Amino acid sequence: MHMISKEMQACIDACLSCYQMCFGMAMTHCLEQGGEHVKPKHFRAMIACAETCRDSAHMMLMNSPQAKQLCALCAEACETCAKECDPLPDMKECADECRRCAEECRRMSGRKMAA
Amino acid sequence: MHMISKEMQACIDACLSCYQMCFGMAMTHCLEQGGEHVKPKHFRAMIACAETCRDSAHMMLMNSPQAKQLCALCAEACETCAKECDPLPDMKECADECRRCAEECRRMSGRKMAA
Amino acid sequence: MHMISKEMQACIDACLSCYQMCFGMAMTHCLEQGGEHVKPKHFRAMIACAETCRDSAHMMLMNSPQAKQLCALCAEACETCAKECDPLPDMKECADECRRCAEECRRMSGRKMAA
Amino acid sequence: MHMISKEMQACIDACLSCYQMCFGMAMTHCLEQGGEHVKPKHFRAMIACAETCRDSAHMMLMNSPQAKQLCALCAEACETCAKECDPLPDMKECADECRRCAEECRRMSGRKMAA
Repeated sequence: MHMISKEMQACIDACLSCYQMCFGMAMTHCLEQGGEHVKPKHFRAMIACAETCRDSAHMMLMNSPQAKQLCALCAEACETCAKECDPLPDMKECADECRRCAEECRRMSGRKMAA
Repeated sequence: MHMISKEMQACIDACLSCYQMCFGMAMTHCLEQGGEHVKPKHFRAMIACAETCRDSAHMMLMNSPQAKQLCALCAEACETCAKECDPLPDMKECADECRRCAEECRRMSGRKMAA
Repeated sequence: MHMISKEMQACIDACLSCYQMCFGMAMTHCLEQGGEHVKPKHFRAMIACAETCRDSAHMMLMNSPQAKQLCALCAEACETCAKECDPLPDMKECADECRRCAEECRRMSGRKMAA
Repeated sequence: MHMISKEMQACIDACLSCYQMCFGMAMTHCLEQGGEHVKPKHFRAMIACAETCRDSAHMMLMNSPQAKQLCALCAEACETCAKECDPLPDMKECADECRRCAEECRRMSGRKMAA
């Protein structure tokens, strides 16, 4: 009824999961920790990743013609965030989530959208 | 690590699930069906519900001081949308999702937020 | 043609202006400054204000039944942010913007929405 | 203090103006008019344009590394929406706004972001 394929739903799920992880961690854990966790480059990568994931899910849900390209962009934002998290041991769970989402987004970006 | 309670996570999950249902259905099924499904009152209730759910999840993820009040507002948007969906037999799944989310949001709005 | 009254447009303008100020300042100036500017309470108030302003504008643009109530909530988020900015001399412009927006939102929340 | 260049502010302004036009028109005028205005392809192009504009402004405000690429995508969404509006005489103002925004976004996408 939704006209959303299994593959697209998997990507939406990955995006909304990564959005929750990155935005939630940034606005609670990172702010509470301070130091490296609130360095502009790290914090911006977290928020940019969260927002791009949220937007990608939105565009997929509406079968937008731009959804595929946004997923390609999202994969980049996720990889950037994962690399920013790598040096911080307590951010490993976040980095893993970002890489899972990047993988799903790359897969989606290479696919034809449902008409 | 996220500092998000089980109860709040349940509400975030309900909100993101209801957001997906309402926004996804509106932008695909309702537009394809036309007629009653794109009447301003119905369609607006769907999008208002979707957006309020998305915003409520966002505010909970950041432990915002306004999250509880937004959840109260979200419960209203969900009930409005459910009532709009009731007369349309193919929207039953959506109405059910809205009522589940309204229930979670009412519960959350009566709760103290984690500090 | 938009069916948006002058009063509502003034509130939308104030909300989008305050959103830009708070989100832009938080993600650039506050992160670059560090210290007091990235304390959880301050930073969260900035982002919560920005997002509530953005959402309020969105709900007004679609003439949502929840728009008035969201404006009331937005006025609170703006006042909270203004108070957080008051002790920081370089945040005066931001505090002023928040108070202007709070004023517009209070006015809107007391008004009947266009049908 | 915002660290946002004049050129980027011009693009943010164009994006937020086009977002307001497309989202506001879709959710009020198009829904009220019905017929061609709520055909899936037309309505989806309106919402996709509105959301991409809103997201592009967001990414520019935070100086995200993905902002330039998102502006390129936004220019496409704006052109798609303009073409959808062209056959409907009452949507001329909207088509013009989309083309203005597409022009600003193309300019921005070819520019280096502030560090």
